[in-house]
Amino acid sequence: MTATVAADRLACWAVGGVGAVTAGADLAAHLAGPLQAAGGLRPFDVVIVTHKIVSKAEGRLVELGAVEPSPEALRLAGDVGQDPRLVEVILAETRRVVRAVPGLLVTETHQGLVCANAGVDRSNVGGGGLVTLLPEDPDASARRLRQGWLPLAGGGPLGVVVTDTFGRPFRDGGVNVAIGVAGMPAMSDHRGIQDPYGYELRVSTLATADEIAGMGELVMGKVDGRPLAVVRGLSWDDGDRDAQTGAARLQRNPDRDVFRW
Amino acid sequence: MTATVAADRLACWAVGGVGAVTAGADLAAHLAGPLQAAGGLRPFDVVIVTHKIVSKAEGRLVELGAVEPSPEALRLAGDVGQDPRLVEVILAETRRVVRAVPGLLVTETHQGLVCANAGVDRSNVGGGGLVTLLPEDPDASARRLRQGWLPLAGGGPLGVVVTDTFGRPFRDGGVNVAIGVAGMPAMSDHRGIQDPYGYELRVSTLATADEIAGMGELVMGKVDGRPLAVVRGLSWDDGDRDAQTGAARLQRNPDRDVFRW
Repeated sequence: MTATVAADRLACWAVGGVGAVTAGADLAAHLAGPLQAAGGLRPFDVVIVTHKIVSKAEGRLVELGAVEPSPEALRLAGDVGQDPRLVEVILAETRRVVRAVPGLLVTETHQGLVCANAGVDRSNVGGGGLVTLLPEDPDASARRLRQGWLPLAGGGPLGVVVTDTFGRPFRDGGVNVAIGVAGMPAMSDHRGIQDPYGYELRVSTLATADEIAGMGELVMGKVDGRPLAVVRGLSWDDGDRDAQTGAARLQRNPDRDVFRW
Repeated sequence: MTATVAADRLACWAVGGVGAVTAGADLAAHLAGPLQAAGGLRPFDVVIVTHKIVSKAEGRLVELGAVEPSPEALRLAGDVGQDPRLVEVILAETRRVVRAVPGLLVTETHQGLVCANAGVDRSNVGGGGLVTLLPEDPDASARRLRQGWLPLAGGGPLGVVVTDTFGRPFRDGGVNVAIGVAGMPAMSDHRGIQDPYGYELRVSTLATADEIAGMGELVMGKVDGRPLAVVRGLSWDDGDRDAQTGAARLQRNPDRDVFRW
């Protein structure tokens, strides 16, 4: 009930020199060299990884040229003004369509994420009609990377956050969010804690991993091939494994979401 | 079209020793000492301030005991299960009610923000029935603070971000967001920029100031009286004053928001 991720002072840096990632690559091993070259890891570091290279390594790529759009994809593509083959790929990743208007297709993915185009993306893939899908289980991806990097961090504690950039209602501009988390709480939970005057806090759970993901975006940028960053200075109760629930903890129960339908 | 706020390496620290802020206080002057004691400011620093102390200094406080709920407030209070006097205060801050269900009242404020309870808050105020309102014009608040702190930062460039913690659709947990920004772009705009393979980026504007606000939350915490933080390492084109539009730039045009109504 009172997991917290906190810091007095944070440092965050981008890790360069990652190079191209190919399908089937052992991503943790591939990134270990760049992480070491950028100063290595210490206990309580958090590594931030953009999902794009995770998806590539996991072979979550589709060649649009090989896609045959279904009648449903053809109809929806007309509604939103997208390539029907792309919409076919999006629908295959989709549990439910949340909004479909010209220029915008928002869906709930099989992973439970609500985002534009089910996270299917053409950019930073390289070549022809290739698109990337989100990792099939981003929390599992984060756990695998963490396992591979634990030796670099003296055995941990070590956090890993896999990110994507999402738009959101009400506010313009995308923000980096956490779609996979391992080794640390995704959320800081202050429920039941009172302010110095005895009042319960109005916002009492904080999506800490989303704030960490956003910090990572500030150093990684969008176009310059830096898909990796390290944050140093955070701490958490690493013995409280119940709090380490993955980024799935950040997904609101659809039944309690007054904006989804 | 291509404003960017970027960094290779960031440092962020909380500033303590702020003490109590009273209505009418010259907040920039009040916080100058703590900022100096925490290492001072340099050009391109960004100071993050939680709106709560801004609201207090600006006298944006209401004593619930003096509030007479209107019939509309009484009805709505029944719908959402809140104190009718609090709902009366919320409605006075509200342009339009966005959602009202048991336990949740989301409105669009006169400032154009969409958030729970119009940002009216009981916590961290101190005493009796006092509640805080959001600053009347948080961008103007940020500009005033920046003006007061420019000498500490060698004349600037200097960014100021005034924050609040907002819930959001689809995802659990609050995140700190920027409700006032001065001296820097609130958004990084990569529209028209292509990835290394020639594709336009899927998410091409980034709410940089929201990501900065989130980073600040990680060091400020919610309950320990640290309403101030500094981020060092960001840079932006300070000559491009057209990009310095304030946090109002982060508000989506309601006509283009498929989730608001």
